[in-house]
Amino acid sequence: MRFDVLTLFPELIDAHMSFSIMKRAIDEGIIDVHTVDPRDYTLDKHRKVDDTPYGGGAGMVLAPQPYVDAYEGVKRAKNSITLMMTPQGEPFNDKISDELANYEQIVILCGHYEGFDERIREIIKPREISIGDFVLTGGELPALCLIDSVSRKIEGTLGKIESAHDDSFADGLLEYPQYTKPREYRGLKVPDVLLNGNHKLIEEFRLEQKIKRTQQKRPDLWEKWVNRH
Amino acid sequence: MRFDVLTLFPELIDAHMSFSIMKRAIDEGIIDVHTVDPRDYTLDKHRKVDDTPYGGGAGMVLAPQPYVDAYEGVKRAKNSITLMMTPQGEPFNDKISDELANYEQIVILCGHYEGFDERIREIIKPREISIGDFVLTGGELPALCLIDSVSRKIEGTLGKIESAHDDSFADGLLEYPQYTKPREYRGLKVPDVLLNGNHKLIEEFRLEQKIKRTQQKRPDLWEKWVNRH
Repeated sequence: MRFDVLTLFPELIDAHMSFSIMKRAIDEGIIDVHTVDPRDYTLDKHRKVDDTPYGGGAGMVLAPQPYVDAYEGVKRAKNSITLMMTPQGEPFNDKISDELANYEQIVILCGHYEGFDERIREIIKPREISIGDFVLTGGELPALCLIDSVSRKIEGTLGKIESAHDDSFADGLLEYPQYTKPREYRGLKVPDVLLNGNHKLIEEFRLEQKIKRTQQKRPDLWEKWVNRH
Repeated sequence: MRFDVLTLFPELIDAHMSFSIMKRAIDEGIIDVHTVDPRDYTLDKHRKVDDTPYGGGAGMVLAPQPYVDAYEGVKRAKNSITLMMTPQGEPFNDKISDELANYEQIVILCGHYEGFDERIREIIKPREISIGDFVLTGGELPALCLIDSVSRKIEGTLGKIESAHDDSFADGLLEYPQYTKPREYRGLKVPDVLLNGNHKLIEEFRLEQKIKRTQQKRPDLWEKWVNRH
């Protein structure tokens, strides 16, 4: 899976990819992450990529030319999709992540400042994705979240020590509580059922806990789950 | 505002803080970001911080001792809050970000692998925050999103060229479309109303667009907005 990230701050993407599981996935050839800086495409002699908004208002708006030209400079695979990270997009979730994992290439447009000139949307027609109802200084962290989440779905990214199978949301419920050694820590004990080796009882306990947690913490998810079952 | 981030991958936090607006906010003394690695607190001779889950299942679970000891080693300001980044938490949003910006110190626990031993939750009692219904390899990207979003709320983080005022969600609606130079790009023109200098008409146009976009793209937000007005 190849990711091409259009960003004015390529170092934010590159820095994150130098560590941990993402680095391993890159080293093993499972994912491939490239950055493109629209500043390298600007025709402005001062290398400007933004300007003041028409109609007034604070902040700077990303001008269409550098972004559109940078986008058109990206070599596209047959099975590719273009995303724009923006608070106006559809809320990202585990289901979208599954869907995106089927592409060969994902091109991601990251905004900054007051956002994109509307004509960038009109020309490129990206699928707009938001990672949540909050605003960040740029699209780089959302892009990294998306790359991380989608990469986890690709076989080989997670080693044997990790697993995507029991994750929260994989079945529409939150994860059950986990316990490891020691059996007792500061007076708090691991539930007996997890120690007796009866797999049927363990499964029942875990499902019960998942349901209880989802009901308590996320009644919205619980309602969706009930409607589906 | 001081952030203390408990993480097994402090380099993921540090790397991000070396660039762009976050670096500037740190350089100007507006925010201060520290990392604490629970691995430095483990009493295990192999510096282990995780172990297999009781009751079986794939993956490794973060053991209670290193995390609890690392947490207790963090000097706490009077006006501080402790957060845990986890898919099971309450969904993060702009309102929570506003609220968190009032604290003097935010301590953030980042998970990894299959998550925290449940007793870490029981002992530390953090406020659990999720940045969305998707799963990542660790809590570091969610912590960075939270730090970025909260920092933007603190006066001085955004320079004159940026502005949090007109952001999406600031008033419960998505942002209006933005345009900058040139007036015409590939045949696409900036709407006339933005060029005529009539501020009343510009404001009307923008509000109209905000409402239209929110209705189309996020009927859930629109419904909330209507119920509040």
